[in-house]
Order: sequence, then C-alpha cells, then structure tokens
Amino acid sequence: MTTATAQAFPNIAFIKYWGNRDAHFRIPSNASISMNLGGLETRTQVTFDPALKNDQLTLNGKPQSGKSLERVSAVLDLVRQMAALQRFARVESNNNFPTGVGIASSASAFAALSLAASAAAGLALSEAELSRLARRGSGSACRSVPGGFVEWQAGEDDLTSYAFSIASPGHWDLSDCIAIVSQAPKPTGSTEGHALAASSPLQAARLADTPRRLDFCRRAILDRDFEAFAEVVEQDCHLMHAVMITSTPPLLYWQPATLAVMQAVMDWRKNGLPVCYTIDAGPNVHVLCPTASAAQVISGLTLITGVEKVLAARPGGPTHLV
Amino acid sequence: MTTATAQAFPNIAFIKYWGNRDAHFRIPSNASISMNLGGLETRTQVTFDPALKNDQLTLNGKPQSGKSLERVSAVLDLVRQMAALQRFARVESNNNFPTGVGIASSASAFAALSLAASAAAGLALSEAELSRLARRGSGSACRSVPGGFVEWQAGEDDLTSYAFSIASPGHWDLSDCIAIVSQAPKPTGSTEGHALAASSPLQAARLADTPRRLDFCRRAILDRDFEAFAEVVEQDCHLMHAVMITSTPPLLYWQPATLAVMQAVMDWRKNGLPVCYTIDAGPNVHVLCPTASAAQVISGLTLITGVEKVLAARPGGPTHLV
Repeated sequence: MTTATAQAFPNIAFIKYWGNRDAHFRIPSNASISMNLGGLETRTQVTFDPALKNDQLTLNGKPQSGKSLERVSAVLDLVRQMAALQRFARVESNNNFPTGVGIASSASAFAALSLAASAAAGLALSEAELSRLARRGSGSACRSVPGGFVEWQAGEDDLTSYAFSIASPGHWDLSDCIAIVSQAPKPTGSTEGHALAASSPLQAARLADTPRRLDFCRRAILDRDFEAFAEVVEQDCHLMHAVMITSTPPLLYWQPATLAVMQAVMDWRKNGLPVCYTIDAGPNVHVLCPTASAAQVISGLTLITGVEKVLAARPGGPTHLV
Repeated sequence: MTTATAQAFPNIAFIKYWGNRDAHFRIPSNASISMNLGGLETRTQVTFDPALKNDQLTLNGKPQSGKSLERVSAVLDLVRQMAALQRFARVESNNNFPTGVGIASSASAFAALSLAASAAAGLALSEAELSRLARRGSGSACRSVPGGFVEWQAGEDDLTSYAFSIASPGHWDLSDCIAIVSQAPKPTGSTEGHALAASSPLQAARLADTPRRLDFCRRAILDRDFEAFAEVVEQDCHLMHAVMITSTPPLLYWQPATLAVMQAVMDWRKNGLPVCYTIDAGPNVHVLCPTASAAQVISGLTLITGVEKVLAARPGGPTHLV
C-alpha cells in the first residue's frame, strides 16, 4: 500500500498535561486523562509517491510550508525509518472544525497522520506504537489514538509514554459544548507554553498533587459520578492556569468572555444543573455535561456576551482507517 | 480624654497577605508590603460614655449591629483591658470611598478605630502597639498605621506581628488608579477566604517563594525601579489568585471586566507605558503607575467596558488624630 486515509478526533483533557520532562520526545511531566471529541474530525490522506522531491502538505485545501510542514516531515521521517522507505509523501488533511484556536486540532491532526502514514508505508502498528508515534508530532495527539476515555501514562522515555482507553465511548454519554469566544490564533502556542511551565513557582506543587487528581478523575469516570467529576475537572483546570499565569513570562489565555462563561457554569451548577468547565491553552471554554442536559447548556451559552458560537461533541472512537 | 477622632487611609498590598498561621490573633502565614492610599479616608470618632449600656456603632451614618458591631467591640475590649476602663463606647465612622467592595475599607476602619479608641481611653500607644491592636480587628489594618510604604512582618505571635514604614509617602510618587468594576458585596469575605488558603495544593509553594518576592519588591520600591516593581507586583497578585481559585471551594473573585482591565494594562506596558496591576480579594483592579502617567491611565481605564468608575490615590501618611 502506498496511500492510506485515516480519521481522528481531537480530545479534551480532564486532567491536563502541562510541561515536559523531555521536550524533544514530548515526555510529559505528568500523566493526563481525556475524552475524544466525536463529531469534530480530522481526515488525512498520505501518499508516498516516488515522483516527489520533498514532502508536501495541504491543510484544509491550502498548501503549507515552514514550521507546520517541518513538524509533519519529522513524523514522516520516523515512519520512513521504521519502514525502511525512502519516498517523500503527499499529505492532505482536512478538519470539519476551526483550526489552531485551541480546540486541539494538532491532536487529531497528528493522530490521523500517524495512522495514515504508517499504513501507507505498509506498517501495521499496534495502538500503543501508534500512540507513541503521534506523541512525537504533538504530545496530546497520543490521546486521540485510542477510543473514548483515555489515559496517557507519562512514562519515563519514548517507549513507555503512550495512551490507552480506560472506558469505551459508550461508557458515559457526556457532551462537550465548546463556547468559542475567540478564533484568533493563540499568542503563545502550546509547544512554547510547555517550556515555560517549570518557571512557575507553583508547577512542582501542581505535579505533586497530580496522582491524587488522576485517581479521583479515573474513579469518577468509571463510576459515572458527575459531581465528583466536575469538582476534579475544574480544580485541575484551575491548577494548570495557575501555573500558566505565574510563569515567567506569564501566560494569560483567558478573555473577558472566558470568565463570563466560567461564572455562568458555576451558577448553573449551584442551581442544580450537572455541568462543569475546563479550558485548554486558549480562551475557549469546554463546558461538559451529561448529553441529556446539552441542549439546555448550549442555549444558555449562546446567550452569553462574547460567545461567538458553540460546537458540540460526544465521546469519539479511536483513530481509524477510512 | 474620653473622646478622640482619628483619620486613616486604606492600603493596597503589593506583596499580598493570604492565609493565617493563627486566625484568632490574625498572625499571617507570610509577610506583606503595601502602600497607604492617600485621598481615600476613614474618619472615626470614639467616645467612652458612662451613660451607655453597650457599644454603639454608626458607619456612614447608619447604625450597625451583629457581626460588624461585634468586631468593633472586640477591639474596644482590648483597649478597655489595657486602660482598665469599664465604659462602653459610641463609635462613629465615615468613609469618603465605597465600603465593603474590596478597597480595604476594613483596613482603614480598624486603623482609625485603634487610634481613636486608645486615645479616647487615655492610652498613648507606640506605632508598633497601635499596629498590633489594629491587626486584631482586621489583619491588613496593621499596615495602615505607619505611613507611606509599609512592611508587615509576619512575626510569630501577637507581640511580634506588626507593620512599619520602609519608605515615606514622599519617597516615590506612585498613583493607584482603582478601576471599579463592581460595587456589589463580595460573595466570600476576606476573613472566610483566609481560612481556605491552606486547602489549596499551591499555598505552600506560594509561601515558600514569598521571601524572594518580598526582597525583590522592597528593593524595587527603595530603588524606585518601576519595571522590577511591575514584574513582582503582578506575579504576587497572580500567585494569590492562583491559591484562591485552587482552594476548596474555589474562590474566583474576577469578573469579565477584571480581565479586560488586566489585558489592557499588559498591552499598555508592552507599548511602553509604565503601568501594572494588582487585585485584592474582589473584582476591582488597582492599576499602579508613576503619577506622571496617571491621567493617561485613568482616561484609558474609563474607556473599558465594565469599568463603572475610577478612584485615584497617592501615597498616604500614617493614621493620625484629628
């Protein structure tokens, strides 16, 4: 096979990854837990073509060069090495959701790329091998490889740092209602951000408390205990943003509308609605709830000043060939 | 003397006090540095009157009862004990600025009360004694007793925990332009908030880094080095709010307009204006700058959506009799 197409979903982390133990291999400073976002999709076709003089990438129909092409070529290099292949590749990738605004498009992109490229090269990688490969392109991409609810064990090196499912997509019907408050590119990308984590006087304390939060979150998911889930998800989000804003230089990703959504969600929960939020390295707010409450949450979010639109997702499956 | 009137200024902390080692005596978990806010004034008259059957308090012309009267009586009890006095007191206190909205009105209130009550009881307390007495009413009130730029040494007990000047009001002409984004009472008062500090997994790390920030801030003030001052003041603010929002339950004092002001101030500074912010346990933002830039800062703040009004203050003197 010299061409293959894969589909992958981005993911939202409930227990966040922030800071690397090894930036080159993207070995994280702490383990993390996430859910794939079914409904938001990246579809990537990779063709190894002997006629090409170098790798080519089109993203949403636009030819790419520079850094984004380099990041893709770095993953293709790993695949070529494993497959003892010397051809360059044509990569066409399309998202059905906004790209580069903090909705983890790099996670689904590198998960889909890893599967499409390895299949096109004739490799049949295991889920763990694919997860490790995706991680090399973008850390959190390793979590988009397995399906449903996923844990990324930090590991100690390239071999031991990969993700696996802790519950299938059908285990718990959660919805992620993503309040988009800005579609502007982030002032500081995640890769640069991770490098600042250690400059915060709070990062070590955040890391020391992480095993407790991982256990608490894993248990809440397995028990489908939304109240416990909400408590730990929001606390973990606050801990990551606490580290971000106390790093040097400080990273303040929140916008006024980010805070308006946070306040609204806390008020709704006080009034009995099962709902909580989490925020990645950007201003947009992921509002989580049982799907039975999603319609109410979405209509509430659209009324908040500064919310441009709301995307919705439910637990997504693994990265797969199409 | 059985009646006396004192005037005091609130203060804004550059290095924040959050969490108590001893809640009863209000011995703080860490030392702090502040500036008195000249222009914002509390004026308090205390009269010990043999005709009274209990303590009476009027605040801005309104008779008070319950908790606020109890807190005042507790300080009067200490004064009565020191003076071997058995009379009850009539206390009349007035502020020329909004009360109970996070502009440290309790600091100026208890500083003025301590001086007026002790003088009315015939006591001539030293500055350190007055500072210790004010601390019993409201921790940060001890910083309003000395003039100008003030450090509150945490101390280890009632005797060693008090504040002193590190620079006179004339040392550095800073302005505090207070952007009022809400005048609603705080959902959680500072006394309750302090009790939550230890529940944050980040408080110990914040405390461990405090000596560094104290030294850095003290040096920046003594050197009138605004750039260094801005860096440490904002980081200290972020550290306190990081602890607040990661406590159980979380305390999120910021409003959307709080964040709009923070972003604006960071942008202005990037563009060369000497300005920084700090935020107490409330949504209002203290925007600090050399007084030469204050007019420009105030007019910029009034243009931000959600800013209701802007108060301005310059370094204030000590609590004094009038």
